[in-house]
Amino acid sequence: MDPGLIQLDQGSGGRAMHELIDSLFVSAFNNPLLAERNDSAVFEIRGGRLAMTTDSYVVDPIFFPGGNIGSLAVHGTVNDLAMRGAKPLYITAGFILEEGLDFGDLKKIVLSMAEAAREAGVQVIAGDTKVVPRGKADKLFINTSGIGIVPAGIDIGGQNARPGDLVLINGTIGDHGMAVLCKREGLAFENEIESDAAALNGLVDLMLASFAGIHVLRDPTRGGVATTLNEIAEQSGVGIRLFEEALPVREDVIGACEVLGLDPLYVANEGKVLAVVPARGADAVLSAMKSHPLGRASCLIGEIVSDDPGRVFLRTRIGGHRLVDMLRGEQLPRIC
Amino acid sequence: MDPGLIQLDQGSGGRAMHELIDSLFVSAFNNPLLAERNDSAVFEIRGGRLAMTTDSYVVDPIFFPGGNIGSLAVHGTVNDLAMRGAKPLYITAGFILEEGLDFGDLKKIVLSMAEAAREAGVQVIAGDTKVVPRGKADKLFINTSGIGIVPAGIDIGGQNARPGDLVLINGTIGDHGMAVLCKREGLAFENEIESDAAALNGLVDLMLASFAGIHVLRDPTRGGVATTLNEIAEQSGVGIRLFEEALPVREDVIGACEVLGLDPLYVANEGKVLAVVPARGADAVLSAMKSHPLGRASCLIGEIVSDDPGRVFLRTRIGGHRLVDMLRGEQLPRIC
Repeated sequence: MDPGLIQLDQGSGGRAMHELIDSLFVSAFNNPLLAERNDSAVFEIRGGRLAMTTDSYVVDPIFFPGGNIGSLAVHGTVNDLAMRGAKPLYITAGFILEEGLDFGDLKKIVLSMAEAAREAGVQVIAGDTKVVPRGKADKLFINTSGIGIVPAGIDIGGQNARPGDLVLINGTIGDHGMAVLCKREGLAFENEIESDAAALNGLVDLMLASFAGIHVLRDPTRGGVATTLNEIAEQSGVGIRLFEEALPVREDVIGACEVLGLDPLYVANEGKVLAVVPARGADAVLSAMKSHPLGRASCLIGEIVSDDPGRVFLRTRIGGHRLVDMLRGEQLPRIC
Repeated sequence: MDPGLIQLDQGSGGRAMHELIDSLFVSAFNNPLLAERNDSAVFEIRGGRLAMTTDSYVVDPIFFPGGNIGSLAVHGTVNDLAMRGAKPLYITAGFILEEGLDFGDLKKIVLSMAEAAREAGVQVIAGDTKVVPRGKADKLFINTSGIGIVPAGIDIGGQNARPGDLVLINGTIGDHGMAVLCKREGLAFENEIESDAAALNGLVDLMLASFAGIHVLRDPTRGGVATTLNEIAEQSGVGIRLFEEALPVREDVIGACEVLGLDPLYVANEGKVLAVVPARGADAVLSAMKSHPLGRASCLIGEIVSDDPGRVFLRTRIGGHRLVDMLRGEQLPRIC
């Protein structure tokens, strides 16, 4: 037994699992609720509206430029809460480990999670660890679930887009997906493409403070901007026009996409927010976004229309219109 | 592409995933919060104390006598909430599917989850679906996280056991672990051993109503009764004496354990609760337990003592005392 590799008995419920939990998880996440080691964490909450979400992470490789599966898991769940206007509060973490996983890798990942949680202002208050035999999983999978509080007066959701609203984004698209894919495929470009993975709750706080009537916030993860806008178009029963010349894409992402035959509109982001805002509030929200480190390159990329409900069109540089459907087929497996 | 097998694109975030979510998950779990299809579910809650928990399920085989990985995932998370005295409210479900999983199996599992949730009175309000390539997971893994409300005045946790308290259990031990193991190993006995997997929140409600001062509730899952009592002994800084002659074990479970060289004290349960109760309340709680269908065989199995803090001893039939440590090593991988 190599002490540096995860063993089956560390998921057995017995002594070895308790030692792993105490020495790694409780110590890294370091809060009294987790340290209680009870079946559930119990905490006091004021009445109101809560948001709750869950996501499992299976990204391959587990380390990529700009992050790893652990920081990604925290960012992703924080963002899903922030997309309803909620203040993220508490997160749970469920680990499925493959026997033989390098303990040093697990430790790095858990420490990244703890750091990401601290930065986002959330606590990891409950967890679970399973270990499956070699070959029955791929290194590790992480589930994070979270809850947050939705302040009074906020009503943000995919069903709220209205004709005349404008579509904003806080920066370049496709970074995360291409960072993971280039790393996985061993593609080297002049500059390494970094994932944009980040917690967006701080940025969203500024946006909400700048204008009270934001209609939709959504992070364009799997399926990219194209798929997420299609979801909004369907939920709200509206059409969406995207302006091709306004779409921000890094040169190296364009290059990598060309090599791989991918369209950046369908490539996953993990630090981007699409905001659908009534036209009268768009300037205020855009200024707020630009004032935040994660929103320097924010811009207007489209508008909501009443034509073609449920559909997204791209107005091309030469003035044509092209239908932008949801992602069909599997473009990039295990990207998050 | 066999339409009866799960494909990679059903986890891509695109059209195929949306179709899977709509046709299976939203329809089976059938509630307005999930049907909204937003990044988080938002719901109103009265102020007070909330309990939150998470568990991932990797049981092999995914179908076993008395349940499957889906019903187990719901029962387990409902029980972790009930063990703090919380009324379970909402659950999230994160699926990691292996490419090629039989769609019929997935459907059966999801329908079992929906039924288990209905029976336990909880709603599945948020979910996530990932698909990994063949060989990168084993059929499917499920994470369930949940929240519940802890009624005022209830303070139940592993740290509350006190010398003089009595230890109760609601029936036979080792059933779940042996049901799964016999199925996995193809062991046939005269009667098939059934898992005890069940939602315990109804039983716990009766127990809480019968006596206001229950100190500890805990479900002895992985690591079995022996490991769970060791956790309580450590958390509370007390000793525990178990009465060997009082331990309820089914004859067929004893037989299977003998064949496999296992001790039922270390075998997982999924429908059992250990209750640590002040002596003055024990009769009332025991009567309440016996009045519930899941507690007909409830009995007193031990007591809390001040000697040997942090340790569990078994008082044997012939009057000796044997140290009962936490599970060491991996007795039964992938039992839940």
